[in-house]
Amino acid sequence: MQTEIFDLVIRGGTLLTMSADMQIIEDGVVAIKANRIELVGKNIQPGADKVIRADGCLVIPGLVNTHAHLPMVCFRGMADDLALMDWLENHIFPMEARFVDKKLAYDGAMLAIAEMILSGTTTVCDGYFFENHIASAIQSCGMRAVVAQGFADFATPDNTGREKIISTAERFVRRWKQYAPLVTPAFFCHSAYTCSPQTLVAVKAAARDAGVQYMLHLMEHEEEARTIESRYGRKPVPHLLELGVLDSETVAVHCNWLSPEDIKVFASQGVRVSHNPASSMKLAAGVAPIPQMLSRGIPVGLGTDGAASNNTLDMFQEMNLAAKIHKAVSLDPTAMSAAEVVRMATIGGARVLGLDNLIGSIEEGKLADIIILDMNQPHLTPLYNPYSQLVYAVRGADVTTSIIDGKIVMENRRLLTMDPAVAMQNVRDIGNRIASEGKP
Amino acid sequence: MQTEIFDLVIRGGTLLTMSADMQIIEDGVVAIKANRIELVGKNIQPGADKVIRADGCLVIPGLVNTHAHLPMVCFRGMADDLALMDWLENHIFPMEARFVDKKLAYDGAMLAIAEMILSGTTTVCDGYFFENHIASAIQSCGMRAVVAQGFADFATPDNTGREKIISTAERFVRRWKQYAPLVTPAFFCHSAYTCSPQTLVAVKAAARDAGVQYMLHLMEHEEEARTIESRYGRKPVPHLLELGVLDSETVAVHCNWLSPEDIKVFASQGVRVSHNPASSMKLAAGVAPIPQMLSRGIPVGLGTDGAASNNTLDMFQEMNLAAKIHKAVSLDPTAMSAAEVVRMATIGGARVLGLDNLIGSIEEGKLADIIILDMNQPHLTPLYNPYSQLVYAVRGADVTTSIIDGKIVMENRRLLTMDPAVAMQNVRDIGNRIASEGKP
Repeated sequence: MQTEIFDLVIRGGTLLTMSADMQIIEDGVVAIKANRIELVGKNIQPGADKVIRADGCLVIPGLVNTHAHLPMVCFRGMADDLALMDWLENHIFPMEARFVDKKLAYDGAMLAIAEMILSGTTTVCDGYFFENHIASAIQSCGMRAVVAQGFADFATPDNTGREKIISTAERFVRRWKQYAPLVTPAFFCHSAYTCSPQTLVAVKAAARDAGVQYMLHLMEHEEEARTIESRYGRKPVPHLLELGVLDSETVAVHCNWLSPEDIKVFASQGVRVSHNPASSMKLAAGVAPIPQMLSRGIPVGLGTDGAASNNTLDMFQEMNLAAKIHKAVSLDPTAMSAAEVVRMATIGGARVLGLDNLIGSIEEGKLADIIILDMNQPHLTPLYNPYSQLVYAVRGADVTTSIIDGKIVMENRRLLTMDPAVAMQNVRDIGNRIASEGKP
Repeated sequence: MQTEIFDLVIRGGTLLTMSADMQIIEDGVVAIKANRIELVGKNIQPGADKVIRADGCLVIPGLVNTHAHLPMVCFRGMADDLALMDWLENHIFPMEARFVDKKLAYDGAMLAIAEMILSGTTTVCDGYFFENHIASAIQSCGMRAVVAQGFADFATPDNTGREKIISTAERFVRRWKQYAPLVTPAFFCHSAYTCSPQTLVAVKAAARDAGVQYMLHLMEHEEEARTIESRYGRKPVPHLLELGVLDSETVAVHCNWLSPEDIKVFASQGVRVSHNPASSMKLAAGVAPIPQMLSRGIPVGLGTDGAASNNTLDMFQEMNLAAKIHKAVSLDPTAMSAAEVVRMATIGGARVLGLDNLIGSIEEGKLADIIILDMNQPHLTPLYNPYSQLVYAVRGADVTTSIIDGKIVMENRRLLTMDPAVAMQNVRDIGNRIASEGKP
């Protein structure tokens, strides 16, 4: 019998596979060759070039953040405790118009990547300006991402004008599609209130042509319904349905004010949803009816949104809030189980991004995106239920090791594919410039 | 000129004093002699036996947790996502009756102390069974605490019977009052629904005699109003007012269902409130009208409650939730500012516990309870507003150093007054016993 030698073996931890049957393997083993999980089991000792001992640890799929604006870390804590429209129109949009350039996009993304890997995220879906530069940062660190080129009709720092939408979109896809599924291109229309029907339809047509996902912010704030209705005579979801942009390759972000009718439309059209509780709570934008969506079978993932509204990119905080906010507003403590929340943060998020055949669970044949958590800490003792512990007690800082696409990108909390000190200094310099020149 | 030599000097950080005028000192200096802050300033270089450099750090008052049940860490994650009364009556109360003894109280408290110091808490108010043993654990670690002897009419693991209330109370105060203000005794009636009017009144009388604070859970759940009204013909706050137990030495915990009338009663009686958002959100017990209480001048502090319902003792999580939940339910993003939340977690909590003349701010003459946070981390970069950063981005794990009563109890995340490995092993053993014997 020939003994197969793997590139990397993780051994000894409690393995939360997040498979369809939610298999948990005590004292589990994961064997990786190149970027794939080749073997998952227990009581085996496969040979390997490198073995990571995970005794006393939880071993889980890397977390999937379905919505972020990475460079907005540069605005973290700049303008808090403000109403959404005040925050957007009097703080964020003007500061973006003034300060966002290619360098801010790249430097901000680098800092965001450090923060994300340090807190267990292995896949992020980003949408912002200068997305080519953000994608370059992501690629240089070996992180997995869906990078969504943004479109809006207002003046943005990288606006190419409506007539160039198609060529911009095609060029973006051409550049990045070759790197899929590590870096996968997509398109992001900012919203139905900042994109005309023509823009919404043209970008969706380009997305269909290119075979990429189409995202938009939807019904983050109650006000949006009135705005869209007064302009187009229909509420947002019927408006988008009429335009033909709602299908199973569309990801709607926030969805705080979806009506029961809207939820039916989403279910029948196969629309996917990104739930961002931290940002929506802080902006007092509303609480999305996520339990109702899940009961209708709508795919839901978690997202952090940008660090200007969150103010972190820590998916463990997002899980904690997702588990609690629906209980708080419904007065039903069974509204969202811990296991359901972990699903949304892993395989559920992968499904939202159309990557669930590749990532989101620890199963043979999937790509190796795995994180290891040190449970040997006072705040994680004792351990009765790993899902409860992950959602209600674990913090991002408890992630010790992260593997993306078979490569170790963090080991014992040391980042291996980037220098966080440089990333911090670059963003500190940007922050100092914003603080001294930019205060409104 | 004679140069005074201090025992300990902290130098170089950004000092959030939490003084009445919210003074912030950049590149600040704090000089400590014995257990007191003797000097607060900048551009001074006092001599000292030990100097802690805090460059790039935030230096803030130690956090004050106004409500916890420390040994309940032993039940962390044992029974989640359940309704409050189901959780209490079918899980927590039976498990407490079966497993809680002096050893569990002490061992659980030791683990809780490790968790609390590691996440920045320097003062805790605890109420549980076998409080003498919990107080001993606290004292042995040099932590500051208000330790509240519990009273209830149902069978508790340490029930002494109603006829012994006064003698038990007196003995408890006699034992611990000599250690105040490091360990300060108090009394805790579980609630108006588990304590008869006689018990409530007898314990309050004993508290007045002894000059100690009187605590009780109040209106955690909506159901309590109906229960009390059906028994006594009055809702809980009028019931307690009639019994004469509401005054400025009374701390009411939770208060999720206080009416505008109840809030007026609290304001006029001087009653103080402990707000526990994590626990109440997870139990779907309700959201306390804290902004309304603050606007009436009612003193409010934050508390974690026990780890069975939270599931951590991390005051930074509590701050994060306190800042977000009131925005989410009121749809008003200005409902609770970050600075207000930091105040509740420090000087506000100190006031609730009657200790605001001694702790809760970094001012000359106060006792030296101080924590230092490492802000040189990706998720805390850049830094525009320290209050925002503390509430929305800092995690308990960012606390590097903790000083309680002038003594360094944690330095560079190493606990100096206890061994966390021993504490974890003891609670793991208890957890294994509960898991194997006790599952309902």
